[in-house]
Amino acid sequence: MAETERLTESVKELLESGRDDRLIDVLADAHAADVSSVMRELDLGDRVRIFRLLSPEHAGDVLSELDDQTLLDLVSALDEHEVSRILDHMPSDEVVEVVEDLPREQAEKILDLMEEEKSEEVHELLEYGEGTAGRLMSTTLVSVHEGLTVAQAIEHIRKSASGDDAFYLYVVDDHEHLVGLVPLHRLLTADPATPVRLIRDEDVESVSVDTDQEEVARLVQRYNLREVPVVDGSHRLLGTISVDNVIDVIREEATEDIQRLGGVAGDETVIDPPRAVFPKRLIWRLINLGTAVLAASVIGLFETSIQALATLAVFMPIVASMGGIGTTQTATVVVRGIALGDMTAGVLMRVLRKELWLGATTGLINGLVVAGIAYLWKGQLLLSLVLGLALWLNMLVAAVVGTLVPIALKTFRVDPAIASSVIITTFTDVFGFFSFLGLATLLIRFLL
Amino acid sequence: MAETERLTESVKELLESGRDDRLIDVLADAHAADVSSVMRELDLGDRVRIFRLLSPEHAGDVLSELDDQTLLDLVSALDEHEVSRILDHMPSDEVVEVVEDLPREQAEKILDLMEEEKSEEVHELLEYGEGTAGRLMSTTLVSVHEGLTVAQAIEHIRKSASGDDAFYLYVVDDHEHLVGLVPLHRLLTADPATPVRLIRDEDVESVSVDTDQEEVARLVQRYNLREVPVVDGSHRLLGTISVDNVIDVIREEATEDIQRLGGVAGDETVIDPPRAVFPKRLIWRLINLGTAVLAASVIGLFETSIQALATLAVFMPIVASMGGIGTTQTATVVVRGIALGDMTAGVLMRVLRKELWLGATTGLINGLVVAGIAYLWKGQLLLSLVLGLALWLNMLVAAVVGTLVPIALKTFRVDPAIASSVIITTFTDVFGFFSFLGLATLLIRFLL
Repeated sequence: MAETERLTESVKELLESGRDDRLIDVLADAHAADVSSVMRELDLGDRVRIFRLLSPEHAGDVLSELDDQTLLDLVSALDEHEVSRILDHMPSDEVVEVVEDLPREQAEKILDLMEEEKSEEVHELLEYGEGTAGRLMSTTLVSVHEGLTVAQAIEHIRKSASGDDAFYLYVVDDHEHLVGLVPLHRLLTADPATPVRLIRDEDVESVSVDTDQEEVARLVQRYNLREVPVVDGSHRLLGTISVDNVIDVIREEATEDIQRLGGVAGDETVIDPPRAVFPKRLIWRLINLGTAVLAASVIGLFETSIQALATLAVFMPIVASMGGIGTTQTATVVVRGIALGDMTAGVLMRVLRKELWLGATTGLINGLVVAGIAYLWKGQLLLSLVLGLALWLNMLVAAVVGTLVPIALKTFRVDPAIASSVIITTFTDVFGFFSFLGLATLLIRFLL
Repeated sequence: MAETERLTESVKELLESGRDDRLIDVLADAHAADVSSVMRELDLGDRVRIFRLLSPEHAGDVLSELDDQTLLDLVSALDEHEVSRILDHMPSDEVVEVVEDLPREQAEKILDLMEEEKSEEVHELLEYGEGTAGRLMSTTLVSVHEGLTVAQAIEHIRKSASGDDAFYLYVVDDHEHLVGLVPLHRLLTADPATPVRLIRDEDVESVSVDTDQEEVARLVQRYNLREVPVVDGSHRLLGTISVDNVIDVIREEATEDIQRLGGVAGDETVIDPPRAVFPKRLIWRLINLGTAVLAASVIGLFETSIQALATLAVFMPIVASMGGIGTTQTATVVVRGIALGDMTAGVLMRVLRKELWLGATTGLINGLVVAGIAYLWKGQLLLSLVLGLALWLNMLVAAVVGTLVPIALKTFRVDPAIASSVIITTFTDVFGFFSFLGLATLLIRFLL
């Protein structure tokens, strides 16, 4: 990222000194991804100024690289005509990526101002649901009829303006059905007179236009694909999804998993305006308050014991806290295992045994340690033993809860990542307070 | 994944009925990735039986798709000669992927039994450090001298046995220095008499052989690359990294981030043997015990107050728990922001303001709600207000700790993802208990 920082510095200097001629050169030489990073660091006025110094093609590339928030701010500060002229230079699938992030009204206005043909293509793509293969695909691809020879196919590729991004030649039948593909490398080395039919791969992994983007990503990862052809219900070839779009999906999914486990919306970013993320944050904090009050009500049941022996209050959070780490560790591995496809029905019992074994062994060690500490601190042997036992029991509960709750959520088609600590630690908090204070209350006459 | 399940079913049936002839056909038609999934679900004896029914090429593909644990078990159950013969059929970079997971002694034994040339290539690749570009790269690539024409280059490609996976022609100078690339599509459509020099892209993103794999992944994501050329210190072309290897890195990195945030080793999988993960799990649980004892010692300071008013013990975990969710949410977004490159120095103040704003507003709402609940429950107005105030203060602390701790760790080159809840919630636990019990102790005479 050092390159970006250097670019940011020189752009800032040139902006200050007002040397637009040099700025034009510097920006023209920079990759769109780097220009978009620079823009994030500037205020809106400078963003607009920079943006207007870019060639229309470059400006389009920069637009498709911008994060949602910066894009929104920038487009709102520009004139709709200006934006539409730039979008005219972009492939329709990239235009989709830009306009889908804009408020509907503004998007419509801009699309109306665009060239009719391009605008229609964009509208067609926008009809596919968000998060489907149709939304990800590009419609510029090279396909030939299976009856052609290699020489004819190459001639066809020469004539079509498909761009350098094509790595496969797709093969279709009379009805545009996808019936195979040929890597360009094979085409290049094949005898020109060979029919394409004879050198194609027939077993082509493809996805339907309404396939979920997560499923597309899974396919790409599983079969190491470089590109995924997209077909309609009757297997007609509609477009292709390139691997860089899939990588974006993988990153988004990972972000979603990480953030949901942390009790945050899957699409929040560090620079989102606070007002935008306020509702989601508040909801999880209120849910957490609910679970905390529930745990407190368990403590409330034993207020008399605590009144009699305040030391109980000192130790009880330790039991809850250890249950928390136990269940969080377990649930984290299980949730990730589900996402990676490792956590299948066939291994459930094995995982449960593993977690119970870990809960029992680490629980025993931690229980002995905490009992030792408590004994040295307070000198009450029985209380120390009750503390150690409650901790050990809570680690077993943590193993079961941490394994089964994510799987249960998955079974009910709820994203297991929302089994965030907020939810699962409720079990261990409640059980931890209950077991420790309950045992202590049963034995209270020996503890005083 | 339905395909895998069907395959698993039919393989199991054929195994039981002993119809090896049918089994051979079924396995030959299946993708290596699917066969490897099936193997995970079988016991070791059946894995070996299946494995021996595969053709050597297919067996090699299956080996490189297996997860570490299944691979280890399988290879240990096979004869070294058997394994080495299969590895002879695989590209060296895939052999590396297999042998690097094996115990050193076993790996050496197998490499000694392999064809000498292949074995030497593998040894050379193994000399690059784990997690570097050198370990990821494949050495089969197509490169031509910049002086050649398009026709000559195509002739060169015909003669070299580079396989269908090549999508770019790399261009080198007299000293094998990388000086450009030509997408095969462009080569196919260019005039055969044109010098390659004139149609190459000169601005080629490349990585050095010792570049960290995370850096490679960042580059691929940033510039939407399909393949990354790898060069040595003097820019000589050594190999290329294909995007499917990069996707594996991205997945590994995401797993590492998710699991470290959950207090688990970055490479643990659900099916790891419990003994293998025991040390890491235990360490984090012991660290958590330490932080829990620290928090308990803060409570210990106020034992007299709790003795006087046991209700304090009922409410105190609520304050700590709310600090926990606040700081976990904040740290999660910040850690992910760092990983994605969004969390730059330029936006630090903006993020801190955002989190403080969120802490103040959601803290106010949660503070009022909890004060209301406490008042309805216990009817003590002043105690309820103390509870609400302590909660609000703890949300502010959570905002600051959740933002700054990951950034501080990053500054000291520690992975910010280990700012897992275990570490950061210690701050909010301690401050939460201290502020609530401290305020209550100051006002104790009005509370009784």
